[in-house]
Amino acid sequence: MGCMSMAETKKNETKPGALTRTIEVKTERRTQLKNFTGEIEKAVAASGCKSGVCYVYVPHTTAGVIVNEGADPDVARDIEAALDRMISHEANYRHAEGNADSHIKTALTATSATIFIENGRLALGRWQGIFFCEFDGPRRREVRVKIVPGASESSD
Amino acid sequence: MGCMSMAETKKNETKPGALTRTIEVKTERRTQLKNFTGEIEKAVAASGCKSGVCYVYVPHTTAGVIVNEGADPDVARDIEAALDRMISHEANYRHAEGNADSHIKTALTATSATIFIENGRLALGRWQGIFFCEFDGPRRREVRVKIVPGASESSD
Amino acid sequence: MGCMSMAETKKNETKPGALTRTIEVKTERRTQLKNFTGEIEKAVAASGCKSGVCYVYVPHTTAGVIVNEGADPDVARDIEAALDRMISHEANYRHAEGNADSHIKTALTATSATIFIENGRLALGRWQGIFFCEFDGPRRREVRVKIVPGASESSD
Repeated sequence: MGCMSMAETKKNETKPGALTRTIEVKTERRTQLKNFTGEIEKAVAASGCKSGVCYVYVPHTTAGVIVNEGADPDVARDIEAALDRMISHEANYRHAEGNADSHIKTALTATSATIFIENGRLALGRWQGIFFCEFDGPRRREVRVKIVPGASESSD
Repeated sequence: MGCMSMAETKKNETKPGALTRTIEVKTERRTQLKNFTGEIEKAVAASGCKSGVCYVYVPHTTAGVIVNEGADPDVARDIEAALDRMISHEANYRHAEGNADSHIKTALTATSATIFIENGRLALGRWQGIFFCEFDGPRRREVRVKIVPGASESSD
Repeated sequence: MGCMSMAETKKNETKPGALTRTIEVKTERRTQLKNFTGEIEKAVAASGCKSGVCYVYVPHTTAGVIVNEGADPDVARDIEAALDRMISHEANYRHAEGNADSHIKTALTATSATIFIENGRLALGRWQGIFFCEFDGPRRREVRVKIVPGASESSD
C-alpha cells in the first residue's frame, strides 16, 4: 500500500476532535497520482471529530494534492499524462536541477486541500478520492493533516 | 436563474453563525462557468455569521469552483474557451466514459474555495464573483457550503 | 522590498491569536511571482497564534497566490514563463481589456492559500515560500491574511 501513518502525533489537545498528524507517502513513478483517501479517513477516525474541516497540506515543492475521481484508476493516469504533455520535462528552463516541470505542475494543481467532515467521516462526493500528486518521484514524502472540529459538533 | 437553495439545512448548531448548506446548481452547457455568488451570499446571510470563513465544496469529479471576474461575463467565456483549447475533449485517453477532459479540467481548477466573511458578508474583491465550473454538463449539481464563525465575531 | 504591512488591523479580537490583516504588495512586471513569505510570517508573529490555520486571500481577478520553491528564484521565473507560454497574451479573446490571459492564469493558480501554524510559525516545508502571483502588473495590490487559532493552541 505504500502509505503509512507515522506515530500518532495527537498531542494533549484541549478540544475534543482536534488532531494534527503526519502521513508518509511512498511513490513509485516520476509523475504519479496516488489515491490516499484511506489514510486521511484514518486520521479523521482517530480524531473523533464528528463535524468540522479536514485540511491536507503538502510541504513539498514538487508534489501537490487534488480531489478527483477515485473509482476508475484510469482517470488518475489520464491526468498524469495530460500534465506531462502540457509541461515538458526538458525545455529551456532556468532552474538547473532538472525538475522545473515538477514545480510548474505543482503550481497548476495545489499544495492543500480542504474537505468537510460530517457524521464523523470525510464528506467526499460519491466518486471522489484524495490524491497525492507526485511530480518528481519516486520518493518518500510527508503530508500534514489537520482536523478542526466545527462549531456545530456538539449538536450533531 | 438556475441556482436554487435547497431546504435550509441549518441544524441545531450550538455556536451562533455556523451553517452547513447544500446548494443546487443547474448547468446548461458542457463547459460552463456559472456565477453563483448570490447563492453563497444567501447562505452567509442565513447563518448570521458576522466574521469568519466560508468554504465552498464541490462533491463532483467533473466540476470545480473558482473565484474570478464577475463583472464582465466575457471573462468566464474566455476561461471556458481556454480550458477547452488546452485540454482536448477527444484524445487518446484511457478513461472510457468520454469525459477524461472534464476530470483534467477539474484538476486544473479546484474542488473547494475559501472566502473570508467580514461585516456579515463575503469579503470578495470589487470585481470578484464565485463561479461553479461545469466541465461535463448540462447537469444538475450540488455544492456544499460551510460557514465557520471566526474567533473575532463577538467583538465585531 | 515592495511589500509593506499596512497599519495593523488587529481589532479587539476576543480570542487570543486571532488576526485579520491587509498586506500591500507592489509588483514590477506584468507576470511576476513575488515571494512574500516574510510578510505573512510577520502577521503570524503579530497574532501571537501558536497553533492554527493561516489563510491568504487575494481579492483580485488578475492575480493569485501559490506555495512553491522559495530557495531558488529561478523556479518562480520558470513558472512565470510556463504560464506565459501556455496562455497567450494576445488571442481571439472576447474580454476587451487586453488582460483575458491574466484572468485565465488566475483561474489556473488560486485566489487563496491555506498554511498551518505550528509553534507560533508558518509550518512551511523546507523549500517552500508563499508567492503573490501577479498576472497584470506592474501594480499595487492588496492581500488579506486571516489567522484562526486551532483547537489545540492552549496545550502547545
